[in-house]
Amino acid sequence: MNYIKEQNGKLWLTEDERENLKISYRIKEIIYSERSPFQHVMILDSYDFGRMLVLDGVVQTTSIDGHIYNEMIAHVPLSLHPSPKKVLIIGGGDCGAAREVAKYEEVEEIHLVEIDELVVRACKEHLPEVSGNLSDPRVQYIYKDGVQFVKDRVNTYDVIIIDSSDPIGPAQVLFEYDFYKSVHEALKEDGMMVCQSQSPIFHMDVLKQTYANIRHLFPHVHVYTATVPTYPGGLWSFTLGGKQPISFERLNTFSKQTKYANADVLNQCFHLPQFMKEHLQS
Amino acid sequence: MNYIKEQNGKLWLTEDERENLKISYRIKEIIYSERSPFQHVMILDSYDFGRMLVLDGVVQTTSIDGHIYNEMIAHVPLSLHPSPKKVLIIGGGDCGAAREVAKYEEVEEIHLVEIDELVVRACKEHLPEVSGNLSDPRVQYIYKDGVQFVKDRVNTYDVIIIDSSDPIGPAQVLFEYDFYKSVHEALKEDGMMVCQSQSPIFHMDVLKQTYANIRHLFPHVHVYTATVPTYPGGLWSFTLGGKQPISFERLNTFSKQTKYANADVLNQCFHLPQFMKEHLQS
Repeated sequence: MNYIKEQNGKLWLTEDERENLKISYRIKEIIYSERSPFQHVMILDSYDFGRMLVLDGVVQTTSIDGHIYNEMIAHVPLSLHPSPKKVLIIGGGDCGAAREVAKYEEVEEIHLVEIDELVVRACKEHLPEVSGNLSDPRVQYIYKDGVQFVKDRVNTYDVIIIDSSDPIGPAQVLFEYDFYKSVHEALKEDGMMVCQSQSPIFHMDVLKQTYANIRHLFPHVHVYTATVPTYPGGLWSFTLGGKQPISFERLNTFSKQTKYANADVLNQCFHLPQFMKEHLQS
Repeated sequence: MNYIKEQNGKLWLTEDERENLKISYRIKEIIYSERSPFQHVMILDSYDFGRMLVLDGVVQTTSIDGHIYNEMIAHVPLSLHPSPKKVLIIGGGDCGAAREVAKYEEVEEIHLVEIDELVVRACKEHLPEVSGNLSDPRVQYIYKDGVQFVKDRVNTYDVIIIDSSDPIGPAQVLFEYDFYKSVHEALKEDGMMVCQSQSPIFHMDVLKQTYANIRHLFPHVHVYTATVPTYPGGLWSFTLGGKQPISFERLNTFSKQTKYANADVLNQCFHLPQFMKEHLQS
């Protein structure tokens, strides 16, 4: 158990992803710990954040704030699309985005394409606060490489949600132009995509590159933010691409049962801080 | 030097304020380190956040995000007040709030009441990214206890900004009902106050108590948020109290030179996440 260290009888997980900033979480209990063919998967019970999904030692989502990210990546495109019937989620192994998408009665099929089956199994069994123990029959779990999967689809989906981890290691290809090109082709004529585009504080380069890539392919592109406490910098960005003009009035009638999102939050999330506006305009 | 530890030739500051969550910042250089009669004051140069003000080992503000907090605590009341001439800032020794208030030409006097002169001196000299090396002749520095100072003022100020540190130690009295009562009395008939009311994620109890206190005194109370990366949880709350109804249209004409705030951000900051709405209604 490399990732967890004991100190004076207390267990700690220290995130080592950043060279000059380390966050240490005190752990009550290691609930689950396995190595998959892709990564090391843990579910930990922490003092301050409840249960957490931890991949290769890096916190991905927690009971205390997982819903913020998942609500914001799912409800923005699902509320904005005029008729979302077929939805593809790439990544999203914690099942939280699928759980939110399933709140739309008009959705007929949800394809969740996650490369690592172990993540889905661990979250469904041990992280119900995030996954919701999702057993909706409309959700089809496909354990494949998302890049390959989407390459073979043309004019198929109404909404594609790219719920990736950070652009290092296996998720790096999910931030490249060729991948967004496949996503564009896999969408129907009025299709819409959304991806998480990292921290505007620490990774403005990633956000700018993602924005440029998506703008190159989609005529209608909008960046929005949410505050996700367990992500470095707190402020997190998402980029939305649409093939048709997006009518934001749809957000005003939002009425799903949620903990973070509401009509006001969904409307205001597109109003960017001044430094983000200036970076994206340059 | 208790607060800074050396590990393999690298300097680290580890925040110990929370029992079960520790954040460690790698430090390039200790710029300033002195003990005042009130606390230990440091200016550190860090790798990820630039220069930081650190009081008793806890990061208060940094070059990378100090402006977010200071812009949001200053521009909301200053934009909303119809004619802010006399402004009192309690705390705010980093001078960042005063710097933002000074952007309003109609302001004639800014009283900055900070108990610890050393904080002001350290920030003016070594933290210009936050303090702006403020030498505006309208700013009067008063090194006194804010609670005592405000007790002796009646019907004096248009806007009072309570820019306190966390409600432990010396700042605890700045979160108590009697203090807000003095603030209410020190404000003119159309006066307005704002205070930072902590993290809605980790300190909902403080926010609820502050909201209740201020509602008891002011007929018009509004909570708003901003994302401040170096504060635990990222999401931060502010509570605004007004003696007269507040006209939010004023925010639409906001045009000060800023890095975070703009008309959209100032308007949207009052749209609270669903969990905050529910907590504040209960």
